[in-house]
Amino acid sequence: MTRSISILGATGSVGASTLDLIRRERDQWHVAALTANCSAAELARLAIEFDAETAIVGDESCLADLREALSGTGIKAAGGARALCDAAARPVDITVAAIVGCAGLAPVMAAIEQGGTIALANKEALVSAGDVMIAAVAKHGAVLLPVDSEHNAIFQCLQGNNIADVRWITLTASGGPFREWTQAQLDAATPKQAVAHPNWDMGAKISVDSATMMNKGLEFIEAHHLFPVGLDRLRIVVHPQSVIHSMVEYRDGSTLAQLGPSDMKVPIASCLAWPKRMETGCAPLDLPAIGTLQFCAPDEGRFPATRLARDAVHAGGAAPATLNAANEVAVAAFLSGQIGFTQIAAIVAQTLDGSIGSAPASLDEVLDVDAAARQRAQEILELL
Amino acid sequence: MTRSISILGATGSVGASTLDLIRRERDQWHVAALTANCSAAELARLAIEFDAETAIVGDESCLADLREALSGTGIKAAGGARALCDAAARPVDITVAAIVGCAGLAPVMAAIEQGGTIALANKEALVSAGDVMIAAVAKHGAVLLPVDSEHNAIFQCLQGNNIADVRWITLTASGGPFREWTQAQLDAATPKQAVAHPNWDMGAKISVDSATMMNKGLEFIEAHHLFPVGLDRLRIVVHPQSVIHSMVEYRDGSTLAQLGPSDMKVPIASCLAWPKRMETGCAPLDLPAIGTLQFCAPDEGRFPATRLARDAVHAGGAAPATLNAANEVAVAAFLSGQIGFTQIAAIVAQTLDGSIGSAPASLDEVLDVDAAARQRAQEILELL
Repeated sequence: MTRSISILGATGSVGASTLDLIRRERDQWHVAALTANCSAAELARLAIEFDAETAIVGDESCLADLREALSGTGIKAAGGARALCDAAARPVDITVAAIVGCAGLAPVMAAIEQGGTIALANKEALVSAGDVMIAAVAKHGAVLLPVDSEHNAIFQCLQGNNIADVRWITLTASGGPFREWTQAQLDAATPKQAVAHPNWDMGAKISVDSATMMNKGLEFIEAHHLFPVGLDRLRIVVHPQSVIHSMVEYRDGSTLAQLGPSDMKVPIASCLAWPKRMETGCAPLDLPAIGTLQFCAPDEGRFPATRLARDAVHAGGAAPATLNAANEVAVAAFLSGQIGFTQIAAIVAQTLDGSIGSAPASLDEVLDVDAAARQRAQEILELL
Repeated sequence: MTRSISILGATGSVGASTLDLIRRERDQWHVAALTANCSAAELARLAIEFDAETAIVGDESCLADLREALSGTGIKAAGGARALCDAAARPVDITVAAIVGCAGLAPVMAAIEQGGTIALANKEALVSAGDVMIAAVAKHGAVLLPVDSEHNAIFQCLQGNNIADVRWITLTASGGPFREWTQAQLDAATPKQAVAHPNWDMGAKISVDSATMMNKGLEFIEAHHLFPVGLDRLRIVVHPQSVIHSMVEYRDGSTLAQLGPSDMKVPIASCLAWPKRMETGCAPLDLPAIGTLQFCAPDEGRFPATRLARDAVHAGGAAPATLNAANEVAVAAFLSGQIGFTQIAAIVAQTLDGSIGSAPASLDEVLDVDAAARQRAQEILELL
């Protein structure tokens, strides 16, 4: 039976992996909408290959290029934030929400409001709009399947179990490319060094978040919303090999873990096929060849981001959305050479030091908090 | 709601752990029958503590002692093989089948025939009577919950999944106390050294099986019956820390693993509470404190038992029951100082070299195969 899919963020790494999987069973999928921010040529190429109904660029200034690339194909082209949300609101069997950053928030909410199944790769949406999004999921009967390898691991480890029996959820963290660096080395780390992740091939923003461990901080907040076991039952363990993607310990002392290659195709396939399984072409796990798995506690002295995230979610209110917005601004500034690596966390901390408002109660309020936090972070940046 | 339980082999290590768990929620359990081979005083003490209806000794010569110890308590006493089977056939909510060796076979079959839920710790029963037992489970609508930590791990990793999606089932093996010993050291290994298992506190027979790795061979056969994925999808990996108890890899590249302390209370609790969870009092898993998990391929040169078991199950017919019987004879001879450590596998191999009959089709035929194999192994022993 053919299933329909829309991919929000089709030209990014999660989008590419999703399309790789669909290529494997091309006749079983109907592609409704593919979106990108501005990569018009690439988006058009994919829309043609997968015979999509619609292709949408978020940046309206790229629409002319998209229209030209799609002329004569019969594939509809659209552009702008409104068109993105319209595409996300189309009723499909599964929507892959893979737009990086807060830009993906409104489309994700639009997808949730159509009550479908959403494979959520956009962690910032859940971090910023956590309570609003979870309430919308409940209200509209949507199903949220986590794509992040850690949350997908937890989701798999919870199958057939009762969340009330959970004693601990342990997020594993690779520790990033700077795991063993000294504070002085961290102060001098360059964008090029930060985006060279040891285990995962990811986009620049997420790679930097992995290097600062803010990625794990955001995942901590995300886990808090997806798996409501209470903050005191969530913890982070550093596991440099990234073979165990996360774990759930039950009250009887059984811990279930999900292991696999550092390939996003595995968690994406888990979402696409859920509650079944599909082929991914990934090589079997060869633990004797890997030999050793290591574990240690995070060092929040050198990597304060996980502490900042935990404090933000404990503080509640607008703090998590503020943390996320400030981090996006600071990472962009680092990638453009404006600030040093360790200043990312410092800017996030300073932004959170300001007065933090109450929890946003709607998407508009989330976007207001986000905008205000970006402005505050920008001001802090300019004073450096 | 009170649940009823019978424990076959109440004075062994699995029996003791089961009773420890029941002590934690004493008011939720009604103990129907407790059995032992001959430890009359210990059995009587437990029967009184847990207010059992009946206590049974398998060895009828111990019945007088049991009667005396229970006189005036109102607890019924019985003895002999027939009484054991009668006790096992009582309808209860769960029967824990923890009699070591082939002696447990008939009682396990009696429990299966009442169509109840059986927590199976007696791996030899499944090894010897595999097809007969699995057919009886299907016929009588019984539920088999595996107590062995490895099979319980696999069982947990399969929850919420379809066995048709399994690519690999990996049994982990500690490698036993002699994992790093040379062949010359193995030749000179003593019973005292063999029963000192690095991770698990178990009975003497199972400890020796762990040292020869025949334990893993028997578990391989057991897994083949419990989880019918095909022999070419079952494998063994040595993992000295015994933290990962076993794993299931699905066709999408996701591997689920169950981890936990080396404490039989965890898998037993999983069976007692299934499909729920119960408290065990086990400490949480602390991977940073453990630090490192290691994995390597088994060395079947020094430890041929897993190869013998795999060959036996591939050969089929009476070979698995023969392997198990020969191993019981050889281990007993080793424990009594009659043969050396490496002669255990040699005797098993020689017993299997004889003509192997067809697969036993009934419990009686299983017992015939078992008796014939014991005799053959004994003859080989006496020729040494």
